[in-house]
Amino acid sequence: MTTTTQSQTSLDSVAELAAQLRVDSIRASTSAGSGHPTSSMSAADLLAVLVARHLRYDWDDPDLPANDHLIFSKGHASPLLYSVFKAVGVISEDELMSGYRRFGQRLQGHPTPVLPWVDVATGSLGQGLPDGVGIALAGRYLERRSYRVWVLCGDSEMAEGSMWEALDKAAYYRLSNLIAIVDVNRLGQRGPTELGWDLDAYRRRAEAFGARVIIVDGHNLAAIDDALTEAEYTAVGQPTVVLAQTVKGRGFSEVEDHPDWHGRPFPPDMAERAITELGGIRDLVLRGPRPTGNVAAEAAVPAEDRARPTGSEAATAAEPITYALGRQAATCKAYGDALVALGARDHRIVALDGEVSNSTYAVEFARAYPDRYFEMFIAEQQMVGAATGLAARGYRPFASTFAAFLTRAYDFIRMGAISGVDLRLIGSHAGVEIGADGPSQMALEDLAMMRAVHGATVLYPSDGTSTAALVQTMADTPGISYLRTTRGAYPVLYPAGETFRIGGSKVLRSGHYDDITLVGAGVTLHACLRAADILRNEGIQARVIDCYSIKPIDSATLAAAAVATSGRMVIAEDHHPEGGLGSAVTEALLAAGQSDLRLAHLAVRGMPGSGSGAELLAWAGIDADHIAAAARKLMDPAQANLDWPRLSGRDLR
Amino acid sequence: MTTTTQSQTSLDSVAELAAQLRVDSIRASTSAGSGHPTSSMSAADLLAVLVARHLRYDWDDPDLPANDHLIFSKGHASPLLYSVFKAVGVISEDELMSGYRRFGQRLQGHPTPVLPWVDVATGSLGQGLPDGVGIALAGRYLERRSYRVWVLCGDSEMAEGSMWEALDKAAYYRLSNLIAIVDVNRLGQRGPTELGWDLDAYRRRAEAFGARVIIVDGHNLAAIDDALTEAEYTAVGQPTVVLAQTVKGRGFSEVEDHPDWHGRPFPPDMAERAITELGGIRDLVLRGPRPTGNVAAEAAVPAEDRARPTGSEAATAAEPITYALGRQAATCKAYGDALVALGARDHRIVALDGEVSNSTYAVEFARAYPDRYFEMFIAEQQMVGAATGLAARGYRPFASTFAAFLTRAYDFIRMGAISGVDLRLIGSHAGVEIGADGPSQMALEDLAMMRAVHGATVLYPSDGTSTAALVQTMADTPGISYLRTTRGAYPVLYPAGETFRIGGSKVLRSGHYDDITLVGAGVTLHACLRAADILRNEGIQARVIDCYSIKPIDSATLAAAAVATSGRMVIAEDHHPEGGLGSAVTEALLAAGQSDLRLAHLAVRGMPGSGSGAELLAWAGIDADHIAAAARKLMDPAQANLDWPRLSGRDLR
Repeated sequence: MTTTTQSQTSLDSVAELAAQLRVDSIRASTSAGSGHPTSSMSAADLLAVLVARHLRYDWDDPDLPANDHLIFSKGHASPLLYSVFKAVGVISEDELMSGYRRFGQRLQGHPTPVLPWVDVATGSLGQGLPDGVGIALAGRYLERRSYRVWVLCGDSEMAEGSMWEALDKAAYYRLSNLIAIVDVNRLGQRGPTELGWDLDAYRRRAEAFGARVIIVDGHNLAAIDDALTEAEYTAVGQPTVVLAQTVKGRGFSEVEDHPDWHGRPFPPDMAERAITELGGIRDLVLRGPRPTGNVAAEAAVPAEDRARPTGSEAATAAEPITYALGRQAATCKAYGDALVALGARDHRIVALDGEVSNSTYAVEFARAYPDRYFEMFIAEQQMVGAATGLAARGYRPFASTFAAFLTRAYDFIRMGAISGVDLRLIGSHAGVEIGADGPSQMALEDLAMMRAVHGATVLYPSDGTSTAALVQTMADTPGISYLRTTRGAYPVLYPAGETFRIGGSKVLRSGHYDDITLVGAGVTLHACLRAADILRNEGIQARVIDCYSIKPIDSATLAAAAVATSGRMVIAEDHHPEGGLGSAVTEALLAAGQSDLRLAHLAVRGMPGSGSGAELLAWAGIDADHIAAAARKLMDPAQANLDWPRLSGRDLR
Repeated sequence: MTTTTQSQTSLDSVAELAAQLRVDSIRASTSAGSGHPTSSMSAADLLAVLVARHLRYDWDDPDLPANDHLIFSKGHASPLLYSVFKAVGVISEDELMSGYRRFGQRLQGHPTPVLPWVDVATGSLGQGLPDGVGIALAGRYLERRSYRVWVLCGDSEMAEGSMWEALDKAAYYRLSNLIAIVDVNRLGQRGPTELGWDLDAYRRRAEAFGARVIIVDGHNLAAIDDALTEAEYTAVGQPTVVLAQTVKGRGFSEVEDHPDWHGRPFPPDMAERAITELGGIRDLVLRGPRPTGNVAAEAAVPAEDRARPTGSEAATAAEPITYALGRQAATCKAYGDALVALGARDHRIVALDGEVSNSTYAVEFARAYPDRYFEMFIAEQQMVGAATGLAARGYRPFASTFAAFLTRAYDFIRMGAISGVDLRLIGSHAGVEIGADGPSQMALEDLAMMRAVHGATVLYPSDGTSTAALVQTMADTPGISYLRTTRGAYPVLYPAGETFRIGGSKVLRSGHYDDITLVGAGVTLHACLRAADILRNEGIQARVIDCYSIKPIDSATLAAAAVATSGRMVIAEDHHPEGGLGSAVTEALLAAGQSDLRLAHLAVRGMPGSGSGAELLAWAGIDADHIAAAARKLMDPAQANLDWPRLSGRDLR
């Protein structure tokens, strides 16, 4: 074993390292019978130079705040990344050869942060660079540290608009600490890329989006070294894009530049020929430069705080706004107020918004703490990507836009769950309640979308008090948490100080002889309360449940209500019927073993158009009158089948 | 009333028209108490020149194939669009003043194709241009007509990556018939845009992405006229981007270039002052040029066929591939084969793919009908946008990628439903079954996402025969239809000729004395069949249902099975537990009035990692052994509560 530890590894050693990275990428993927050796081989020289001579990283302390960051936006080149980990001595030969892509192992098919040297999960192309923007924002504006964020990008993924959203924001925020290295090997999965080896075309695009561009022969080690030196030492107030012309499968003549070898491991005999051509198996262990900059100062920070931001504002314990019972308040406004209060007490709180902060009320946080607010303009994918990067650095991002437009970022939200980051997403203006703007702005799929995210928390408060409480709770909620807010103002239902736990609910009306249960959340809860009043005048006693926590859901309270009201329950939601509140409630009841249910599920079953909120809630069949009518039908033993689809309005289209 | 009908309206008349468009935009939004007058006023001069002198459109025959297309990508400028409709005489003053944004009316808050002059719904920014690319592709490559596609874009929406995906594809496909007019009024919803009036920055970006750029003063009618003339008459094999420097609220001095007037109608007194400043109410009706080109030839085509493509290939009635019972076949491959067969019989079938056609097997269609295949590279948003545009022209697009990556296009899919287009989406490589690639590629949210789309059809076949049949059915299925396919090969279950209706299911095992029902779809159906074998050896008779149609679902068959098996049912799905097959089945049973259910829902409840498909199906608790175990528990009357969440594997992360 040859161990090189000097701070500047010679280019001869780098060449050996590059060969080893290729050989190990081949061996790992062949041993797994799966993986992308050729996509690793094209970038091996780039990574060898980067890791040996430029990446400032203490491999024994991946949490060191001064460490640079290395993101494989082309996550399918995981064999190369894991070969790097072997070469710096943090994983063993054995793990590389027997752990890659195997069940229960951490060297997954695409990198995830189960590995301590990985910041964010990649594998859905076009996300590593947006995530890297978030880390670079943290470094430059919040941590104020000198680390750099190096992102290895594929050329194919430059077709994703999100890559351009990322460069746009990187330029807007002058992220000179962000360096994208694009491995232009000209071949995608099924054939040539759009732009092939036209590096000048990439150059024009990246420059137009505000990046400084350096073009390099991606297999000339000295040239790469010069390029990365230029990238890191010339502070220009711009992100840097290194465009590297490379050859897919470089180093093994049988596959070089061959379109048919994407994502295919070499069969053992072929792997053997490749390894021979590459000069055999090596066992080099070497490391590059250690972090510089403010390492000494950081060493004084207690270890548990090191990855944490140090706020610049005074830690004023701003009291959250309280809401007088019965007063009209919009939950979207309550979100903004609560976030401001939260921001005063916790400097890790940061906020992002997609150019609608005066609607989502993120603007209140932006005004109070401009240093911790990041305007993402109309780029929802980048907004969630930046939030992911910020969360990976220990911040607590709240990212908001209209609930409808969070659908734009679904792939990023899904990947955030795989990254295991804690993201707080706020979707305002949900449902037909918004009225005149029409269906494009309504969000009738968001609850389904968010519930299906692994480990997600889905909240839908109905008043100012509960919104304020839940926003505060979200700051400490792990995983992806989602808060759905409402445009219009509705009466405050809860006194100040009322607590709202995740997975809880509130029983707002109940008695010993309840006939039926009405379940609502957000705007429909108010309709349930009015329906209960209507029914009471008719002698029907309704229990009313505020299901503000849709995931997890309060199964016990729902089940008890079902038992108490002979299985009779009306569920009303301002959402399409699939996957939202109705699904959550019915699945909870069934999972809890409830039978003998007699349910009515009121939801938005048609395609809405414009109108007033009240008109549309009535049209959808989710207002107080329809809830009361459904309750009456459920009380009628002669009514065998409610025929849910006929309970609501038809298309307005 | 002044009616001008000459083919070339004078610029003096155009000025009058522009003033009228401003006045009417103000009047419509003030009358509605809602809407975006200032965003309409910035673009009024552009639209006046375009409509009066350049847009070739027969307003009396919006379905005329030779008509140009006009898309408001900035859909919030709907007052301007509707004012145009009044100015050309297709809607009345009364409709404009009393119909805008009102319940049950067609002049919705954002344009939708309930109006015959609107191709696609807009309002989620960054989508009109991608949709326009689809229409331009149809015009250039399929219809081979000379119409142009004019897309009015906002400057704020240029922050959406999808706009750059659109320009990239427009350049790649040399769409000289596509002209984007960007209304650079420098103000977004909450303040200045990123680039303000830096038209040169926009120019560099658009040129780098392959567009020809023309910069113009957006309030100089003669200059606009010259710019649009240049845009339409100089064929350059490139899309054109007209960058127009404009002033938000132009024409009313109180609000011009004012950041606080986004999306706000003027109060009546203010509207009155604005109308006075603009010279009062006008009642001009005028029309621009009529379509030229091959109008005469098209007139001979029967009306019902006029919006339809005319194929270039011979209408060979290729027989679909049949699958021998018990043979191993992958449904993803069966999709490709079926699409080829379909393509031979129907020239309206077109296919798109996101650079994974060799995995989705769209490549087979691409090889058979290269003229009807559009490679979208890794740009899923643009893929669905192009499909939307193609569908708006009467084609029948099938768009495919990994199911996981359709999440990238959710906002486009949602908007497709609002557009009312028929889109066929194919998601391959779904679920933990894919194995080694890990969670980023798995799609465990797609069924929830697609079910929540209004009017969607969600299909998940388990064998070659059913896949082939369902692909054929999808060609005639209205709305958004989604086919989920599986990577691995599994035994063919159905003989050739078996029919599979939308909303149906197949009972694969049943008897007079069934004890329990097992419900699966796709890969879990095979597990259900094996579980039934295991159970039979233990004396438990299981009914097995292939729930290939998840939405709509076969409530009757499921309800009958529930009755026959005393409410005992195991549902297994390769998807997260929320919103997928389990939700569909349980909601169907409850909606059908079933009670006394005793269900077990097996789903992917943890975060998966890499592994083999078999290992991961076992880990998730959705393989035959787990299904059999759940069935045994359900048969045990002592087992009160199955505790669904404990039935499956925990996080591998």
